[in-house]
Amino acid sequence: MTHNQPTPDMPRCIVMHAQDNVAIIANDGGLPAGTLLPNGITLVDAIPQGHKVALADLREGDAIRRYGVTIAFAAQDLPRGSWINERVTRMPASPALDNLPKATIQAPPMPAITDRYFEGFRNPDGSVGTRNILAITTTVQCVSGVVAHAVARIRRELLPRYPNVDDVVSLEHIYGCGVAIDAPDAIIPIRTVRNIARNPNFGGATMVVSLGCEKLQPERLMPAGSIAIASQSPDVVVLQDDAHVGFESMIASIMATAEKHLAILDKRRREPCPLSDLVVGVQCGGSDAFSGVTANPAVGYATDLLVSAGATVIFSENTEVRDGVAQLTARCATPEVADALIAELDWYDRYLQRGSADRSANTTPGNKKGGLSNIVEKAMGSIIKSGTRTIAGVIPPGERAHTRGLLFGATPASDFICGTLQLAAGMNMHVFTTGRGTPYGLAEVPVIKVATRTNLARRWFDLMDLDAGRIATGEASIQQVGEELFELIIAIASGRKRACAEKLKLHNSLALFNPAPVT
Amino acid sequence: MTHNQPTPDMPRCIVMHAQDNVAIIANDGGLPAGTLLPNGITLVDAIPQGHKVALADLREGDAIRRYGVTIAFAAQDLPRGSWINERVTRMPASPALDNLPKATIQAPPMPAITDRYFEGFRNPDGSVGTRNILAITTTVQCVSGVVAHAVARIRRELLPRYPNVDDVVSLEHIYGCGVAIDAPDAIIPIRTVRNIARNPNFGGATMVVSLGCEKLQPERLMPAGSIAIASQSPDVVVLQDDAHVGFESMIASIMATAEKHLAILDKRRREPCPLSDLVVGVQCGGSDAFSGVTANPAVGYATDLLVSAGATVIFSENTEVRDGVAQLTARCATPEVADALIAELDWYDRYLQRGSADRSANTTPGNKKGGLSNIVEKAMGSIIKSGTRTIAGVIPPGERAHTRGLLFGATPASDFICGTLQLAAGMNMHVFTTGRGTPYGLAEVPVIKVATRTNLARRWFDLMDLDAGRIATGEASIQQVGEELFELIIAIASGRKRACAEKLKLHNSLALFNPAPVT
Ligand SMILES: [Ca+2]
Ligand SMILES: [Ca+2]
Ligand SMILES: [Ca+2]
Ligand SMILES: [Ca+2]
Ligand SMILES: [Ca+2]
Repeated sequence: MTHNQPTPDMPRCIVMHAQDNVAIIANDGGLPAGTLLPNGITLVDAIPQGHKVALADLREGDAIRRYGVTIAFAAQDLPRGSWINERVTRMPASPALDNLPKATIQAPPMPAITDRYFEGFRNPDGSVGTRNILAITTTVQCVSGVVAHAVARIRRELLPRYPNVDDVVSLEHIYGCGVAIDAPDAIIPIRTVRNIARNPNFGGATMVVSLGCEKLQPERLMPAGSIAIASQSPDVVVLQDDAHVGFESMIASIMATAEKHLAILDKRRREPCPLSDLVVGVQCGGSDAFSGVTANPAVGYATDLLVSAGATVIFSENTEVRDGVAQLTARCATPEVADALIAELDWYDRYLQRGSADRSANTTPGNKKGGLSNIVEKAMGSIIKSGTRTIAGVIPPGERAHTRGLLFGATPASDFICGTLQLAAGMNMHVFTTGRGTPYGLAEVPVIKVATRTNLARRWFDLMDLDAGRIATGEASIQQVGEELFELIIAIASGRKRACAEKLKLHNSLALFNPAPVT
Repeated sequence: MTHNQPTPDMPRCIVMHAQDNVAIIANDGGLPAGTLLPNGITLVDAIPQGHKVALADLREGDAIRRYGVTIAFAAQDLPRGSWINERVTRMPASPALDNLPKATIQAPPMPAITDRYFEGFRNPDGSVGTRNILAITTTVQCVSGVVAHAVARIRRELLPRYPNVDDVVSLEHIYGCGVAIDAPDAIIPIRTVRNIARNPNFGGATMVVSLGCEKLQPERLMPAGSIAIASQSPDVVVLQDDAHVGFESMIASIMATAEKHLAILDKRRREPCPLSDLVVGVQCGGSDAFSGVTANPAVGYATDLLVSAGATVIFSENTEVRDGVAQLTARCATPEVADALIAELDWYDRYLQRGSADRSANTTPGNKKGGLSNIVEKAMGSIIKSGTRTIAGVIPPGERAHTRGLLFGATPASDFICGTLQLAAGMNMHVFTTGRGTPYGLAEVPVIKVATRTNLARRWFDLMDLDAGRIATGEASIQQVGEELFELIIAIASGRKRACAEKLKLHNSLALFNPAPVT
């Protein structure tokens, strides 16, 4: 990547790759027509910040290259200096899923990091929590109103007596009886709810509130052994239990069980853990053209550091890797890993087709306003989060990670569905980049938000944890911001710092991925 | 319906129709093998409460009749006195959707009710609210965490200054960018969110919180004129607005707009309204064999009274009417209404097929434990809620009701999805029957819960509003409980009484029906 000097009002543009024939306008507020860029090009049109300028004369049908790949074709003649946007371009066809390169390239060598630790809560199953939270999961939405009351009372009346426990959260979800539980795809939401309950931050002490008559019976949600608390099955409070007389008796039951679990959790203590116990879910949302220039490359740099330290990093978002599938299959550790990745994307293609949709449904008006012409360009900027290391495995939606290293978690790109599936995969830290801005937060794990632009980081000073916009202005390099992010992940994982969303207690709801019909 | 004397421990069974060859055991705890029933039959098996006994010797393949219709076929020879359950029966095929009778039967005559009123909040668009609530709707899940904080502060700091306003609610939903917004079926969740914002209880003063970059832009969610507050478009707070510096400024914006709306709502006063301004959504959930014997027939009786008074009653739950479709198409006002009903059920059949499911996915373990052998039997007991009046119209999922009278609202049977769609249809009162028991409640409209069994009504004394179990014991008739429910609806609609879920503030989340894929 090349860019000009960091003088605030000097015209600035960013080229990502030597073969590119477009660059990104970096200046706040964009640049007017007639502006002379330092590379000698004069703008034909006014171009907004983050949008693309043609670096060469393009004829109709010419390939438009960014990140060294074809992101679109010119739909008309476009002289150099023109504004390149979705209205003057055509999207390439989706790459076929057969004949892809599999495990053909080796990651560039990188020294292993062996001397870094974080302070975490080690669990009986070997996983490590970054927070110490009592989770109450539910088998069906019917019980949510009662659980919400119980959680408020536990927080007020019990939590102060267990100072080592950070919080109590209800794992509320919409799943329940209104689902075709035996439909082939229903396994996805069921295993998601199950595996979220096993998230390392809950210390194996998740309790269950059940109604009693629901389809998703507690034994089906949590078969014996799915959570090991001193070899017991998880505690279940059944609201329809004959012993419950009136609302208060239900609250009393939940609180009594909760207190038992709080006592267990309160004994947990942080201890030094190798970085290989980190499971970091990365995603992007509310993206703009800077996402792929500043924040996502910095995340990619941190991903490489984490993987070199033995940590697990999960990148996701099916529609945002679909157009770059060949890069990913080539980077897989084995042909089998590549096949698993292809199988997930193929299943997802067919899922979209069944609903008469395709990958182009991913881009939002905000993406386009932010300069992303189409899903291909968005994908190239999204994949960068995965860094350069070998892809060690693939996690089907709702499954838990079984290997360490860099993993592809197959999920929709929806921020909340992706986050929910990464929670199920076992993430104990979440990194989220945003260009347009979102006040995203989860009650279950710390969410570090990285802004793609300095302007956003300044305005949302108490909502953004890190300003990657300094990469565009030249104040910092990708390496510097990537190293800052690496250090921030360690500090927040260790409980020495809290993320913005934690301080403000901003919590988005869980959003299950349910490809099965509801009844 | 015939039943025996109400002596507590005397064996009791209930026959619904003269042609039936099964009856329901009514006694708490069921009856042991060898029990002599008053009709001279001796039980061959022990039979649990709510379960069926054979009244005649049945041969393999014989039709099993309840409600005067075939609910199943005997899978083996079953001597009279046998326990009839799903293990010894086969389900009939789903009735075809062609050659159905359309508008062929006239409702039995019934006097119009013209002298009853309730006290409601009349809105500029002619609709009438039963509560006076400030609603904050959202275009995308991203904003929910911020809105939740704002709602807590509005409730604490502003609401006490506007004593005529009952509450402030966030219309939080999972919809947002992670959807194929242009997929054919995406219109369903979008119009659902839009029409919920127009619910009569919000007085046309719903405000919108938007992120800024979402697919579902405020103009798309709420086109100009969709809510008429003194001819303005709805007020929109956009979190990404450049004017917002930090989290507190977002909260301040939402609160300032909310205060304007609270001032408008605070001027609303209840006035006498004819019952034709009531829009009552009825549904059942957590059903048992008594649902179709006690609570649902009582609801059917109240439905008839309401419709005779010109009110709108919406019954729903596609999979629970599918097997009784011929009864319903025959009861439609015109062949066009029948065709609309058939079109909705046909669309839903195909929706289930796409996901490799069918109507049998509806029944739960709790239903079966409660004595319901299959979806056909459940359907017959569910349809009774619709009473006997002519079906005046059909509401597609997410649409608002445009006619008065008895309407079929095409929805999944899931309690939360059905309730959410009935909110969109414009219901201002909700009636919910339950046999197994559910602590269901909505923040948006009062929910009256009717218990099918006295035992449940007693144990859940502060969660159940009405005990229809008295019909099974002989303490009350269907007519008596139906009339009590009619009076309770009027009293709660008028604000003279509050439903149990309102007193306890039990609120289930909205659950959107989204048949489109997520991306
Ligand atoms: Ca993304
Ligand atoms: Ca995302
Ligand atoms: Ca039902
Ligand atoms: Ca229902
Ligand atoms: Ca919620």
